[in-house]
Amino acid sequence: MPELFTVLTPRDALRKLLDHLPAEIATETIPILDALDRVLAESLAAPGPLPAFARSTVDGYAVRAADTFGASEALPAYLTVIGEAPMGRVPAFEIGQTQAAIIHTGGMLPPGADAIVMIERTQKAREDEIEVLRSVAVGENVIQIGEDVKTGDLLLERGRRLRPQDLGGLAAIGVAHVTVAKRPRVAILATGDEVVPPDIEPAPGQVRDVNTYTVAGIVERAGGIAVPRGIIRDDFDALYQAARSAIDTADALVLSAGSSVSVRDMTSDVIGQLGPPGVLVHGVSIKPGKPTILAMCDGKPAFGLPGNPVSAMVVADLFITPTLWRMQGLAQPITHRTIQARLARNVASTPGREDYIQVRLVERDGEVWADPVFGKSNLIYTLVKAAGLMIVPLDANGVQEGERVEVRLF
Amino acid sequence: MPELFTVLTPRDALRKLLDHLPAEIATETIPILDALDRVLAESLAAPGPLPAFARSTVDGYAVRAADTFGASEALPAYLTVIGEAPMGRVPAFEIGQTQAAIIHTGGMLPPGADAIVMIERTQKAREDEIEVLRSVAVGENVIQIGEDVKTGDLLLERGRRLRPQDLGGLAAIGVAHVTVAKRPRVAILATGDEVVPPDIEPAPGQVRDVNTYTVAGIVERAGGIAVPRGIIRDDFDALYQAARSAIDTADALVLSAGSSVSVRDMTSDVIGQLGPPGVLVHGVSIKPGKPTILAMCDGKPAFGLPGNPVSAMVVADLFITPTLWRMQGLAQPITHRTIQARLARNVASTPGREDYIQVRLVERDGEVWADPVFGKSNLIYTLVKAAGLMIVPLDANGVQEGERVEVRLF
Repeated sequence: MPELFTVLTPRDALRKLLDHLPAEIATETIPILDALDRVLAESLAAPGPLPAFARSTVDGYAVRAADTFGASEALPAYLTVIGEAPMGRVPAFEIGQTQAAIIHTGGMLPPGADAIVMIERTQKAREDEIEVLRSVAVGENVIQIGEDVKTGDLLLERGRRLRPQDLGGLAAIGVAHVTVAKRPRVAILATGDEVVPPDIEPAPGQVRDVNTYTVAGIVERAGGIAVPRGIIRDDFDALYQAARSAIDTADALVLSAGSSVSVRDMTSDVIGQLGPPGVLVHGVSIKPGKPTILAMCDGKPAFGLPGNPVSAMVVADLFITPTLWRMQGLAQPITHRTIQARLARNVASTPGREDYIQVRLVERDGEVWADPVFGKSNLIYTLVKAAGLMIVPLDANGVQEGERVEVRLF
Repeated sequence: MPELFTVLTPRDALRKLLDHLPAEIATETIPILDALDRVLAESLAAPGPLPAFARSTVDGYAVRAADTFGASEALPAYLTVIGEAPMGRVPAFEIGQTQAAIIHTGGMLPPGADAIVMIERTQKAREDEIEVLRSVAVGENVIQIGEDVKTGDLLLERGRRLRPQDLGGLAAIGVAHVTVAKRPRVAILATGDEVVPPDIEPAPGQVRDVNTYTVAGIVERAGGIAVPRGIIRDDFDALYQAARSAIDTADALVLSAGSSVSVRDMTSDVIGQLGPPGVLVHGVSIKPGKPTILAMCDGKPAFGLPGNPVSAMVVADLFITPTLWRMQGLAQPITHRTIQARLARNVASTPGREDYIQVRLVERDGEVWADPVFGKSNLIYTLVKAAGLMIVPLDANGVQEGERVEVRLF
């Protein structure tokens, strides 16, 4: 019953939903080549040191540092070259006093050697003999065993979203398959007697389904798998059957309902019957998006989005995205790409409500200006024309032309 | 021959490569549900107006505005309710003088009506009669035909990377399948006698392949398809055969070579034989990443990356990413997510070189500080620990502790 619900702030509404999410994360083990942007479900420690052997960082000669002490261009140290350190194998010789061996970047330091002289600091004296023109300290031009990671170091913690270099880090410690959170499957239902699929020519009075596609995009960006379940007519039984079957075969449900009061109430009633505890939030102090429904049904989140494309997108971004990240166990929220800009015209707002204003970005006099794209929230192309959203905070009366604002890029 | 090349700035090096890219973009037509983050390859204009009919934006009554002029709570206008506008169909009646019809949000304005009175501004007088408590202007609470888009409006231009709302916008104009740039297939070859795959336990002197995975991640993020082609030993013929077959079956080639001078020269020679014009850039004024090779071979870009994981990643981000976007016809570069921070310690630099410094982010006294992660560029875990990169510009001597810096998040 909607009248039992008070309108919550976006923060409180989200917290209420997240507080009801089961703590358990569904996981799967996949090849690291498929793991980009997936959320790590296990913490990984170093099984051994990296590097596992002392390596040269330059092309040059492996030496005993003491043999080079005092060496200079005027008074070089003379060393006998006894061989070449092979790549990928243990050198078969040992460096004795006043001896040296050719070594390449990444090569293993031969036994007996404790430093590398760069080739540029040497000169060939004879076949098998070099002049060292500058002294090296012990350890110079060498990566020591464990300099990158030590045995047992905690390297990657569960909850991390894997970046390109994290895949490299996994490979480096021998993890070719990694356990990550499963991508939550999100069923999307559009409703409305007037709504037809995009490939149908609408008859007079009909409109094409927009929200299924916008919401699917947001679900995918948040790491989920969008499962469109079609368009349902405005009928309680039809909607209930469709919602029941959709949520039973997915991990979450989105109902993109019409915006009329009767349809909103029906959506709320349907969601209320999908499992306990049911509807948690009905109404959020945001514009657009006030008539948002957030629910938890037998451990699965359900979202009732306003039917207007702009409202649906703002609400999806605000509530579906963080919920999906939480379902994947993400430890740190993903920040939006943002840009600083100056506001191109006054924007009015009502305190007690967070306003999401679509803006275009224009460059003027070498500065970036945020130009609000006004238009009713029924217009999908205001969103297509916009570069991002600026947020007028809950307690603000508005923002003046010329003020600096932060724009959240789409 | 390396000696023919001078070290270029990153900007000049990239421009030189991009100037040699073929202008033609390979395209394919796919369902819009698969088109998120793909680059549009056709410009789309509106085949008709949106909305295609005048719609109500509220729940209320469709009226003739003139009938409400002067209406107030004290002196309401009385209107006869003659029916209910159905959703998704043309109303079968016409609104005459002092008549009204129930209408829902999104419903089609019945013939004869020119405004909607919100239900909250009305009161039931009798069965079939309402009191209108406030006047409405012509067009009030109505979205007019073409208010979102007009027939022929240019809606989405080729070169746009499709965002969630763009998919919705495509659906709205009946585009269920869209022509986008093909994802470039990027063959990745690792080389080195010391390199083994991640699932092999390295013998002493061996290391696991890291760069294939890091580069694959960067390729995927830039819209490409990574095609790992294994690890090749440091042998000209073996590398040439592998590179030849890799580039012939892909759209671009990445060679992640060792860092020793001999291996770098061999990589350059191999790339030079893959087709004209061959190597364009050999050496870029960046740190890390100076020994970068950029080439164009029979219309396909080829990249020779330094073997060090950190260099490889910086170079891939700097050159492979923009090249792949250009191959997809992207019109506007994708900006990095960035964060402003204060530098936690002095960073030295050499003018004439762009420095990419890995930083960790730490919060201190309510401010975000960028703490450089120092370490040789051979260490993959410095990258794993870092949150992003700060750039010391070409002409700077360094950056002082406490200065504000922009960090490019990974």
